[in-house]
Amino acid sequence: MLKKYNLIYFLLLFLLIVSFDANAQKKIWNEIKFKSPNILIILADDMGQGDMGFLGSKKIRTPNLNKLASEGIYCNNAYVSASVCAPSRAGLLTGRQPQRFGFEHNLPKWDKSMANTPESHGLKMGELTIADHLKNVGYETAIIGKWHLGEMDVHHPNNRGFNYFCGMIGGAHPYFPEKGNNSIQRNGVVINKFSSPYLTDFFTDEGVKWIQEHKKKPWFLFMSYNAPHTPLQAKEEDLALFSNINDKGRKTYAAMVYSLDRGIGRLIKTLKKQGQLENTLIVFLSDNGGATTNHSWRGVFSGAKGNMREGGIHIPMLWYWKGVLKSGRTDAVVSSLDLLPTFLAAANAQPIEAYDGKEKKKHPRIYDGYNILPVLQGKENAQVRRFFWRLQGQSCVLDGKDKFIRLTHRPAQYFRPFEDLGERNDLSEQHSEKFLELYKMLMHWESELPTYPSFFTSPYWIKASAENYDDYIPVPEPEYPNP
Amino acid sequence: MLKKYNLIYFLLLFLLIVSFDANAQKKIWNEIKFKSPNILIILADDMGQGDMGFLGSKKIRTPNLNKLASEGIYCNNAYVSASVCAPSRAGLLTGRQPQRFGFEHNLPKWDKSMANTPESHGLKMGELTIADHLKNVGYETAIIGKWHLGEMDVHHPNNRGFNYFCGMIGGAHPYFPEKGNNSIQRNGVVINKFSSPYLTDFFTDEGVKWIQEHKKKPWFLFMSYNAPHTPLQAKEEDLALFSNINDKGRKTYAAMVYSLDRGIGRLIKTLKKQGQLENTLIVFLSDNGGATTNHSWRGVFSGAKGNMREGGIHIPMLWYWKGVLKSGRTDAVVSSLDLLPTFLAAANAQPIEAYDGKEKKKHPRIYDGYNILPVLQGKENAQVRRFFWRLQGQSCVLDGKDKFIRLTHRPAQYFRPFEDLGERNDLSEQHSEKFLELYKMLMHWESELPTYPSFFTSPYWIKASAENYDDYIPVPEPEYPNP
Repeated sequence: MLKKYNLIYFLLLFLLIVSFDANAQKKIWNEIKFKSPNILIILADDMGQGDMGFLGSKKIRTPNLNKLASEGIYCNNAYVSASVCAPSRAGLLTGRQPQRFGFEHNLPKWDKSMANTPESHGLKMGELTIADHLKNVGYETAIIGKWHLGEMDVHHPNNRGFNYFCGMIGGAHPYFPEKGNNSIQRNGVVINKFSSPYLTDFFTDEGVKWIQEHKKKPWFLFMSYNAPHTPLQAKEEDLALFSNINDKGRKTYAAMVYSLDRGIGRLIKTLKKQGQLENTLIVFLSDNGGATTNHSWRGVFSGAKGNMREGGIHIPMLWYWKGVLKSGRTDAVVSSLDLLPTFLAAANAQPIEAYDGKEKKKHPRIYDGYNILPVLQGKENAQVRRFFWRLQGQSCVLDGKDKFIRLTHRPAQYFRPFEDLGERNDLSEQHSEKFLELYKMLMHWESELPTYPSFFTSPYWIKASAENYDDYIPVPEPEYPNP
Repeated sequence: MLKKYNLIYFLLLFLLIVSFDANAQKKIWNEIKFKSPNILIILADDMGQGDMGFLGSKKIRTPNLNKLASEGIYCNNAYVSASVCAPSRAGLLTGRQPQRFGFEHNLPKWDKSMANTPESHGLKMGELTIADHLKNVGYETAIIGKWHLGEMDVHHPNNRGFNYFCGMIGGAHPYFPEKGNNSIQRNGVVINKFSSPYLTDFFTDEGVKWIQEHKKKPWFLFMSYNAPHTPLQAKEEDLALFSNINDKGRKTYAAMVYSLDRGIGRLIKTLKKQGQLENTLIVFLSDNGGATTNHSWRGVFSGAKGNMREGGIHIPMLWYWKGVLKSGRTDAVVSSLDLLPTFLAAANAQPIEAYDGKEKKKHPRIYDGYNILPVLQGKENAQVRRFFWRLQGQSCVLDGKDKFIRLTHRPAQYFRPFEDLGERNDLSEQHSEKFLELYKMLMHWESELPTYPSFFTSPYWIKASAENYDDYIPVPEPEYPNP
């Protein structure tokens, strides 16, 4: 009798474990059922982490971002997968650590002296974008602004899941295209007439128009702004608003951010006017930390674009989905790698089936983020995360609350950035066992990367970033009072 | 009167300085005038630093190398430019740190999944070999044995300065070619008949024959043996000589080295018979330290092939030139990079004019070694040297007597290997200022390398060499006494 019951208990336990496991497997993709919202990414470029009104800036004006922050949810501990533009965007769009597929560096212009083929000089064939996955489940898809993931036909956004593209293929562009050096295209055809003479306004015009024209199907729009990346160029009327800033560079930067913020306001207004705001999931973030070249302010962080201090990789991220997400602020550690699985969960979709490896050794494609909607709804706690970075000889791991940076020019460092925001306190000697554990963890990751990063930027940057490594400590917002 | 003399003194001093400077400029190339000797390189492959009778081995028999050592000059502090075969051979033949031109790793077989073109998967176009330079001044040139510098037509030894080639294009070959997997070629044509069934003997046959056939012009012969590289295969009669070794692997290794040594004896005998020994400059060395896979013994050193401990890069080097070089032993720090300028000086030749960089920014090609004949003659002291290495994530600088190794998996190390042969005493904490100086020195070198190593071996080796890093400490010669 006892034995029989035991057997039943065992069977029940077994079934419970099996079904639990199956659920766990599916969890990252479709925990929650929604009615396929529109999805809007608004990406800023090299924006300083302190440079928004709601984040503390007293000089920079971002009324629309401030409003979005007050109505949406601000992620206080958000990371990108690289500290420079191109690999960061590659990580965001594929949902995978870009080093997995050799996309470690920014894209220098391809020329014959390079060892790789032009086709491998960009987002590798076979890597799928958010647009690929969403198009596959019936979404209309568009990218407006900067591409920066390769210049060949095989890399063109129209061949990487985006039905519509208006913008530049490269990483930067002058802000007054009618004045020269214009390479802004629409689906492969260079355009010469601009609805607004200033590029940021023009991209907003394009976004507004595209939203107005797409009301029937759910859509995915990637507003891939290049503002406030260099060159530092702004409209006279925007500059005039910042008479409280004397420094010409900082004043121009402020005007550029203001124009970006105005664009965000117009996009949201358009959604509201069309009754689409309630069914649109919006995320705003920057592709990496503030650059040292555009007069940005990294707020409480050390470092900057291009290195692995928080100033390079810890970025502002803001989510908004009316009625679904909570408003306020979360300390959950999240990543731009979470966008893809979060969007697919919102769209109630699975990713396109894909495999890595050569034919005889294929295995299902690995995605590095997870669906964070339950976290943003306040329904679940965030996962403990482990992220890796590598750029120009420096590499880094963030393992839970511990962060380890391997440098080119001197001993590695160990910080606890959530307690020590400015990374002023290197714990490598004090906690040498943990330090070594992190060192080995990073080596193991590096040893499992593909044998071949697809391209490199100049090692000039190794030298430059090593030499300037200590120059970017946290400072108060630059003050330029009127005389 | 006084003024006049002063003027004359100044003029004389000025002339002295000017002429001294001009000499200094020329010095690396043609300090000494010789009658263009024949030049013979004998290269061993993965040979252990303890594995010669004259270096202390009690088990391995090298009577001909012992004799050469007693009549020639042994360099006790000689280095190669890489700790694995292919880049080490690239450095030796070009006289340049191979990392300068992207040749950092061993050559994996090219396949379509690689990002580079097959043409860039080997010794870069435009890099000139010792054979190119010597052929340019009228030398007959030949390489017999292992190539390992690329598999395309553009890399073929016949296209890289060698009039004659007999051997294999790849990095390893079975030792009994008639038994299968034969790819031994002569100037591009695979051969099937072998004058000796054992590869090392066959290469010696080829060398002897080639020397016999070339008596008129000065010649350059590169005996690029693959012994005692794996696979471990030896002749029965050679194995029979080592009944004092029970371990099968070590016994086979001993027999392989013995066959190599026998070949060296035959080459020297041939030179003597033809009356050419007095006009032949001979150098013997190994392409890197003993491997962990071929039962070699690294003698007093730590580490092995593939890492930057002395066991990987500090190799035996032996010079012989009857009547010109002194005999004995020198502690001068020298390198395989010195072969090219030394040979050109012996041949009283200048290198072929060559430039690096793109058209608008050309600068004269840099060679990393210098003519060491005056050192080997005992006429001049050796220069203080600075060498750099990088392989699979590890890098290293030897600056005078200080050596710094940057590792992938734990903190960097600082040794003084000429006082601490086995590298047991890490000075990084004790001399932290020097440690940091070396760290920066290495970073500067790395930041000036080309943006693009041309190819990579598997990062599997990063992991393997990190995990085994401490396993190869100095041990006495393995003893395998008879029962």
